[in-house]
This record gives sequence, structure tokens and C-alpha cells, in this order.
Amino acid sequence: MKYGIAIFPQKHVQDFANSYRKRYDPHYTLIPPHITLKEAFEMDEANLDKAVDHLEKVARESQPFEICFHKVSCFHPTNNVIYLAVKNDQPLRTLHEKINSGILYHPHRYPFTPHLTIGQNMSTDELHDVYGSLRMRSLNLHTEVDRFHLLYQLENGSWSVYQSFLFKG
Amino acid sequence: MKYGIAIFPQKHVQDFANSYRKRYDPHYTLIPPHITLKEAFEMDEANLDKAVDHLEKVARESQPFEICFHKVSCFHPTNNVIYLAVKNDQPLRTLHEKINSGILYHPHRYPFTPHLTIGQNMSTDELHDVYGSLRMRSLNLHTEVDRFHLLYQLENGSWSVYQSFLFKG
Repeated sequence: MKYGIAIFPQKHVQDFANSYRKRYDPHYTLIPPHITLKEAFEMDEANLDKAVDHLEKVARESQPFEICFHKVSCFHPTNNVIYLAVKNDQPLRTLHEKINSGILYHPHRYPFTPHLTIGQNMSTDELHDVYGSLRMRSLNLHTEVDRFHLLYQLENGSWSVYQSFLFKG
Repeated sequence: MKYGIAIFPQKHVQDFANSYRKRYDPHYTLIPPHITLKEAFEMDEANLDKAVDHLEKVARESQPFEICFHKVSCFHPTNNVIYLAVKNDQPLRTLHEKINSGILYHPHRYPFTPHLTIGQNMSTDELHDVYGSLRMRSLNLHTEVDRFHLLYQLENGSWSVYQSFLFKG
């Protein structure tokens, strides 16, 4: 089964992100706006309980924090993704490192860069158009982070939430 | 903010339901396949913590159980909904009663009938066609129920999971 771990920001951020995702992100209907903490990974269901124990431990030791999305950025030329960038991303990096360890350790394909995707799979021309009009825009979108979610992928590519993990540190 | 409470059955049931929802349910992309435990309701965010306390108490006192979807049924003529019916629905009714109490009490619009919608908003002709071809089909889809989820609705009508509540009884 394919699993993933993500943070869903507060509703006002999700609504803002969806106003762009609707046009520019083919994953718009597959999952709500999110920050990926751990990319999709294959795991045997037999290991699910151990993975949940690991995630509960991480959450138990984590404290809630606030992040701010301050600008639109993009990964071009690595890939044609446009995203909301996080100003103070250290707490997300720490969380990612803690999660991606032990039974859930997988080597990275890319360096971990916390982000909230609002556009992907765009042609390079379209990317330049959209990014050109958004890159100068200054954002000030705050959200509290006090939990993350473990999800699994359905056959149609959409994601279903298995469990939420609340920070108790 | 608009909230709802639902159970997401195990993946094999969600995949089965989606094979029909894709064609017959306009809510297909708004939420994964689910059993509604409490219909969408408006709640001030100021009451969220109290609602979570209430739901944690319900979950703490509930024991995991198994249900079986045994046939396709429909609510016609009340409304043109086709759904997977639950054979042994008493544990779901009990759960619904416990949830729909105290701070989360709202009177019912319809009698609570546990179901997993696979088609809705159909014309009566289409409903008769589809239901006619499915009603004689015998199902035997089992799923374990050991948690429910509190969700909130985004501006685009889709639902985002706020928290999962695990049974600990």
C-alpha cells in the first residue's frame, strides 16, 4: 500500500491555495492543499502498527508552532512546480527528519524543501507566465501547525486520511 | 465553519465504492467514500475544542467492531441516492447516538440510516436503470471500524480531515 505524511494548513490557507490549484494543479481533486512531510512510500500493511507507534512518538515529543507562507516560489528547472514558500521552515525540517527515521527511513530523491504546491505538470511556457505574475506578490499567510496526518492512496490516485497525530510536547 | 463526522472504510471498500462513485456521484472528488455519522453542521470555531473533547470521550468508550456491506439499496422516493447497505448496523446507530448528543446535538432531518453513498443527484430514470442492475447483486464487503474522523468543508465544497478519533474501549 502507498502511504504519505502531510500537514494540512488551516482553512483560510487551503482556500487560498485551492484558488490556484483549481487552475494549475492536476492533483487538485486528489488531496486537499498540504505540505508534504514525507513523500509517498510503499509499506506493507503488516508494518502499519509499528509506523503508527513511531509517528505517535514523534508527535508526542513535538510542540505546536506557527509558520508563515510569505511568497510564491518555484522549483524550475528541477521540475515545473509552483508553490507557497515557508519563511521559517526549520520546525518543518526538524519534523521531517524525525519522521523520516527508524522504520520510516527512506533516502531522499531531492533535498527536503517544505512547500505547499499550487501548480504542477505545467508546460515551461505556462510556468513562466503564471510564476511571472505571482512571483512579486508578497504573502502573509499564517497557520498553526499542531498535528500531521498519515494518509494512504486509493486506486484512483486520491488520498484518504488514516490517522491524525497531535503534538503533545 | 461547516463540520461533518464520518467513517472511512478500509481501502478495498473505498476502491469498490469509487468504481461506482466515479460515474454516479458528483461528490466523487470532494471526499473519499465514507459512512456519514453526523451530517454537515455549522459550528463556531470557538466551540471546536469542546466538540473535540466530546468526540474523544465517545471514542475512548467505544470498542472496534466489524461491519458488512451486503447489498446495494436506495432511498428513492425520499431522494435519488444509491448506497451500499450495512447488514449489522446497530454499532453504527449507537455511535451516531453517542456523537449526536451534548454539545453536538442537532435534531435529525431524516431518521439515521447508516449507508455508504455510491450514487446521488441522479434523474429518476437513471436511478432506476442503475439500481435495477445492482439491486440483485449480493455483496460481502467487510471492514473493521476502529475510528471516526472530524472533517471541515473548504470553500470549494471539498472536505479536509481535522482529526481522527480512535476507539479505546
